[in-house]
Amino acid sequence: MKINENYLNLSDNYLFADIAKRVKAFKAETPMADVISLGIGDVTQPLVPAVVEALHRAAEELGVAASFRGYGPEQGYDFLRDAIVEHDFRGRGINIAADEIFVSDGAKSDTGNFQELLSADCVVAVTDPVYPVYVDSNVMAGRRIVKLPCTAENGFVPELPSEHVDVIYLCYPNNPTGTTLNREQLKVWVDYAIRENALIFYDSAYEAFIQHDDIPHSIYEIPGAKQCAVEFHSYSKTAGFTGVRCGYTVVPKVLSPTGVVLRRVEATRGRASEGLLNSLWNRRQCTKFNGTSYLSQRAAEAIYTPEGREQVKATIAYYMENARLMRKALMDMGFTVYGGVDAPYLWVKTLSLTTNPSPKGEGDFKKEWSSWEFFDWMLRSAHVVCTPGAGFGECGEGYVRLTAFGTHENTEKALRRIANRL
Amino acid sequence: MKINENYLNLSDNYLFADIAKRVKAFKAETPMADVISLGIGDVTQPLVPAVVEALHRAAEELGVAASFRGYGPEQGYDFLRDAIVEHDFRGRGINIAADEIFVSDGAKSDTGNFQELLSADCVVAVTDPVYPVYVDSNVMAGRRIVKLPCTAENGFVPELPSEHVDVIYLCYPNNPTGTTLNREQLKVWVDYAIRENALIFYDSAYEAFIQHDDIPHSIYEIPGAKQCAVEFHSYSKTAGFTGVRCGYTVVPKVLSPTGVVLRRVEATRGRASEGLLNSLWNRRQCTKFNGTSYLSQRAAEAIYTPEGREQVKATIAYYMENARLMRKALMDMGFTVYGGVDAPYLWVKTLSLTTNPSPKGEGDFKKEWSSWEFFDWMLRSAHVVCTPGAGFGECGEGYVRLTAFGTHENTEKALRRIANRL
Repeated sequence: MKINENYLNLSDNYLFADIAKRVKAFKAETPMADVISLGIGDVTQPLVPAVVEALHRAAEELGVAASFRGYGPEQGYDFLRDAIVEHDFRGRGINIAADEIFVSDGAKSDTGNFQELLSADCVVAVTDPVYPVYVDSNVMAGRRIVKLPCTAENGFVPELPSEHVDVIYLCYPNNPTGTTLNREQLKVWVDYAIRENALIFYDSAYEAFIQHDDIPHSIYEIPGAKQCAVEFHSYSKTAGFTGVRCGYTVVPKVLSPTGVVLRRVEATRGRASEGLLNSLWNRRQCTKFNGTSYLSQRAAEAIYTPEGREQVKATIAYYMENARLMRKALMDMGFTVYGGVDAPYLWVKTLSLTTNPSPKGEGDFKKEWSSWEFFDWMLRSAHVVCTPGAGFGECGEGYVRLTAFGTHENTEKALRRIANRL
Repeated sequence: MKINENYLNLSDNYLFADIAKRVKAFKAETPMADVISLGIGDVTQPLVPAVVEALHRAAEELGVAASFRGYGPEQGYDFLRDAIVEHDFRGRGINIAADEIFVSDGAKSDTGNFQELLSADCVVAVTDPVYPVYVDSNVMAGRRIVKLPCTAENGFVPELPSEHVDVIYLCYPNNPTGTTLNREQLKVWVDYAIRENALIFYDSAYEAFIQHDDIPHSIYEIPGAKQCAVEFHSYSKTAGFTGVRCGYTVVPKVLSPTGVVLRRVEATRGRASEGLLNSLWNRRQCTKFNGTSYLSQRAAEAIYTPEGREQVKATIAYYMENARLMRKALMDMGFTVYGGVDAPYLWVKTLSLTTNPSPKGEGDFKKEWSSWEFFDWMLRSAHVVCTPGAGFGECGEGYVRLTAFGTHENTEKALRRIANRL
């Protein structure tokens, strides 16, 4: 019995485990410290009333024989797929059909699993810094990975790779940098994918936080994208579903790359490869997945009701007010800050204070701090937890990620403390 | 961009889709027919009150900031893992630790995904007939599959393979045959796995239906099984969770196959491979899964409370009374029936009436009917839907699967109709 040796090539990324360990050690030393986390990307605001009501109703339904429902469709219930089509696409002038929508237990599962449909010798491009799932799920499958640096120098806009790649993962608004691509910048990638017969995996988990009209909410706003892109959606940050678990993936039927293997497929199937990825993903989900919890799907449906939409919008405004406050306060302190305008993440340069008046207290900003050194300083001086950028890739070194998902109270308290330690 | 060509080797198994198509056509022809399904393995009884209450409480909690929970542990909450350890194992004298339990959105996901940890050149053995997920998930990974016939001749007890195999999928009580292995029969497989350095994937989705003491509820009742077996558990049939989605997988830390690659792993890791599969599965789940819905986990926890256990037991007794009735009635009609004693499935020989008085009506039992011909006869003569055995593999030909998951009323009505058509 042999294991999948590709797993041995995984780097031990214990980012959040390491953070937890350091925080635990600090709390043991300093039991009175009131540690505030602006690090991990989890939400703090409760589910909105429309969602809670939907959950109660669904629980009621399942407790009565006449309205009990067992297995649902692996692809998701029509009530939710239709609401998605209507509100997330048709309302934005995008034509997506309900059978191009696959509801799931979350975007992490789908972004992790979708690569199964691809050959192991596909070359995969990811941005650096990057959400680690894209990298690790491809390392597990033995694929070669090309990094696309996103730095202050290129405005966090990845440049086209110098070699052919088969797959490109793009996450915009970006985790971890909080930066965005406008329509022209995204069009460059759609054009590349069509030209190179490549596939774009577009993670739009943070689209609900977009405030500006020139930032696309969906890659399908770009002409041609339906021929080259799969799009992943999450309700985790949109509606606080990190514990409820629901998201969806769009696999257009016109998505039909035309490589050598695909021509062979066409011969085998005796018909054009149109709809191929849609049907392969359907087959994958029907084989290895049994549908999303009925309760979670009813909860997601409630987000699209008039009350649900208003309530969810208010929660997003709450977090974006945090982002605005954080951005302003940190910049006033002299930090260089990216993101936080159309995204709940702020990407803060750890070295920025070298040009500033010398810091007060034990902080020494004259030194070029690594992201982990900065993390330690924040924890020990301000009792604030951030996420070291180095955990997201080489180009993340020299940055930390802060999130706007705290409460107003804690966010303001954390900012005051940081200011006081400078 | 090349696709995973292994997907092209999948056989088009449209079993339930084909059934649905034939039923739909029949209903169009015969709109007044009151069709009863004893085919698909879905439950009909509502969630028990303890579970419904737990769902309401969880919805309430998530709607209030003070008790809101976001991301849970990918492995599942301790409250559930501890309850599992206590009730499903310690209570049966089996020592399993909480960190050997991985809670998930269901056994279909886990039985489908676990093979990812294995090398593509592992040889996989499955019984025939078989739950198609075991086959398809391995075809998708390009593995060679060996079939182990389970027939009336061998009492549906698979014989050891004549060649070395690396992985064996066993599902007992069995889907689709409803037959079981007793401790001695299962021990043969544990001994084989240890001797051959093979891995057993033991699917115990139907263990709650076991009525007899000599049938093991868990493979870990067999000495040595923790060194060679992963066990999959489902709440779908135990507690009607087909729509709620929750299950779990047990990956013992002593599970340490010792193949060539593993010795290489030991060298790489500088330590013994003990705990290797446990840590690889943990890594897989942390990368491609974000934990099970909090509501589903609270619902599962409620099954282990004193009230929950009583209520769930009553539902199982309800279904097993159906199974008893079905078995008796079908045997009285002259059918040869397997299963349905310690399992909710009955495996009925389609040819059994050849030795019986000639049938009444349009049925012609003198002919050797295929499982699909028998299906059509049941549908058209008795308006009852069964599942053709051929859909589960070659050895399923000549059988149909009936399930005990209907209501008493429908089950009795279906049996009366079948009797009337003979």
